[in-house]
Amino acid sequence: MAVQVAVCGPRECTEEDRGNARELGRLLAERGAVVICGGYSGVMAAVAAGAREAGGTVVGVLSRDTKEGANPDLTVAIPTGVGEARNNIIVNSGDAVIVVGGSWGTLSELALAMRRGRVPVVQLGGWRILDERGRPVPGIRHAASPEEALELTGLWA
Amino acid sequence: MAVQVAVCGPRECTEEDRGNARELGRLLAERGAVVICGGYSGVMAAVAAGAREAGGTVVGVLSRDTKEGANPDLTVAIPTGVGEARNNIIVNSGDAVIVVGGSWGTLSELALAMRRGRVPVVQLGGWRILDERGRPVPGIRHAASPEEALELTGLWA
Amino acid sequence: MAVQVAVCGPRECTEEDRGNARELGRLLAERGAVVICGGYSGVMAAVAAGAREAGGTVVGVLSRDTKEGANPDLTVAIPTGVGEARNNIIVNSGDAVIVVGGSWGTLSELALAMRRGRVPVVQLGGWRILDERGRPVPGIRHAASPEEALELTGLWA
Amino acid sequence: MAVQVAVCGPRECTEEDRGNARELGRLLAERGAVVICGGYSGVMAAVAAGAREAGGTVVGVLSRDTKEGANPDLTVAIPTGVGEARNNIIVNSGDAVIVVGGSWGTLSELALAMRRGRVPVVQLGGWRILDERGRPVPGIRHAASPEEALELTGLWA
Repeated sequence: MAVQVAVCGPRECTEEDRGNARELGRLLAERGAVVICGGYSGVMAAVAAGAREAGGTVVGVLSRDTKEGANPDLTVAIPTGVGEARNNIIVNSGDAVIVVGGSWGTLSELALAMRRGRVPVVQLGGWRILDERGRPVPGIRHAASPEEALELTGLWA
Repeated sequence: MAVQVAVCGPRECTEEDRGNARELGRLLAERGAVVICGGYSGVMAAVAAGAREAGGTVVGVLSRDTKEGANPDLTVAIPTGVGEARNNIIVNSGDAVIVVGGSWGTLSELALAMRRGRVPVVQLGGWRILDERGRPVPGIRHAASPEEALELTGLWA
Repeated sequence: MAVQVAVCGPRECTEEDRGNARELGRLLAERGAVVICGGYSGVMAAVAAGAREAGGTVVGVLSRDTKEGANPDLTVAIPTGVGEARNNIIVNSGDAVIVVGGSWGTLSELALAMRRGRVPVVQLGGWRILDERGRPVPGIRHAASPEEALELTGLWA
Repeated sequence: MAVQVAVCGPRECTEEDRGNARELGRLLAERGAVVICGGYSGVMAAVAAGAREAGGTVVGVLSRDTKEGANPDLTVAIPTGVGEARNNIIVNSGDAVIVVGGSWGTLSELALAMRRGRVPVVQLGGWRILDERGRPVPGIRHAASPEEALELTGLWA
């Protein structure tokens, strides 16, 4: 089985997020990793497009119970029908989790990945989390570029 | 059907969190609200104990598929067997969501509640979320006490 | 914590199923059991009405992510938002499972309860299951009345 | 996106089921269909092995939250962590559902597929379902061979 990397990010994202996600998809596909994503628009569509351009495999783990609204670059669509509970399935499916950009849904995936605690979690842009005393909560690996995000997963060290 | 309030918080919590959760449970029961929680230890056990002391109804939405490890103050246990995906079920079950203290699991519930966007979300202590530019992400109502948390839900205005 | 009994059955049911479900709800409430059901119409509504008449507690584990369409006799509604995957949650929540009447959704609950294999599964009316050679698949306890269904759970032996 | 076919069946199966599942996997892969299965042993392993031999893509939708126990012929593993609720996800993921052999878990998938009612459901061997009056419940398409099972999906008519 190939390495699998979950890439999470918002439907409504910045142009920078979109560019980063596309580049991430391309780099992951070039290294033979299967991309797992949420399967809809924004960062999810960009990472799928990037991976597909490079001939990779992309799985969309959808919240709905049909393929309606899924982006056209998916290799496989999994219409879970479990709503936002699918976020946990995306996170469980990665040998590493990379989060691009910020939204409440994306934050839930970041938090679920850290809660899981089994695999590296890398953040590229997006929101920051401070503890009660205003200090950054430790554990997340922060990348400044798609290349660095891949490096920080440790999967190709 | 009675009003339902979801109360989320970590297994490993501070003494202050525990006291706040117990007081919240008591106040919610006194107002006739059903308390929905995760059903295990820490904040979950404290809010259940508080509600039970005041004669209230407490539902524990468990991650496991049996009642194993459920706290003894629950009125009803729902062993979902869906793991951390149960966090979304807790959040969906509240006419308001109150979050006490901070942990990655708790942050996922806060984020899922804000993502849902249907009901008031109140935070009592715990972690803070900043956007890309370091500004607090708006939308969460911050309380300084259990009493204020209830007030900020707007359910008893 | 009180004993919990899951009662499953179709939305579109016969008058006999409806009568059996109402009587089951009443009997379960009289014995202090919490009733867990799917929370919508048909058998689900009848068992809830019966339990409520007798002063019992009824939890509706809903497929939708809001209370929309929930029957009015529920004590607590759990809008899981996980679609038909909620059938597994209903089944996991019972110290016994009683199935009234037949439909594909109801059959899935019967099968999941037997698959789980932890608690007694009682059938009152409904469909029959034969193996490859046309023999009844063993394991289900068949009742001819609501009273016998309760007896066959073994919870009040 | 390629056509996706969900193939369901028991962990503990007969040699005939195993042979049928392997042949089904091979035929589906030859036609370019992605196979969705439960990802463990028995029928799940056989259909994956058959698809892989023919160069196909196989997705295992696992009940556990890690890849532990997944069969080695999967192209992609989705460790949902939602337990048997994953059965509903498998069924939702098929443009057709083919059921090989009989078990309680398999019956739940057959029932959920019929409950869904959106796509053809084909049965190859396995259990039979009778209504209250002892008549076969209509709707399932019965095949006598893997070739006929594919034909009855109507996907290659």
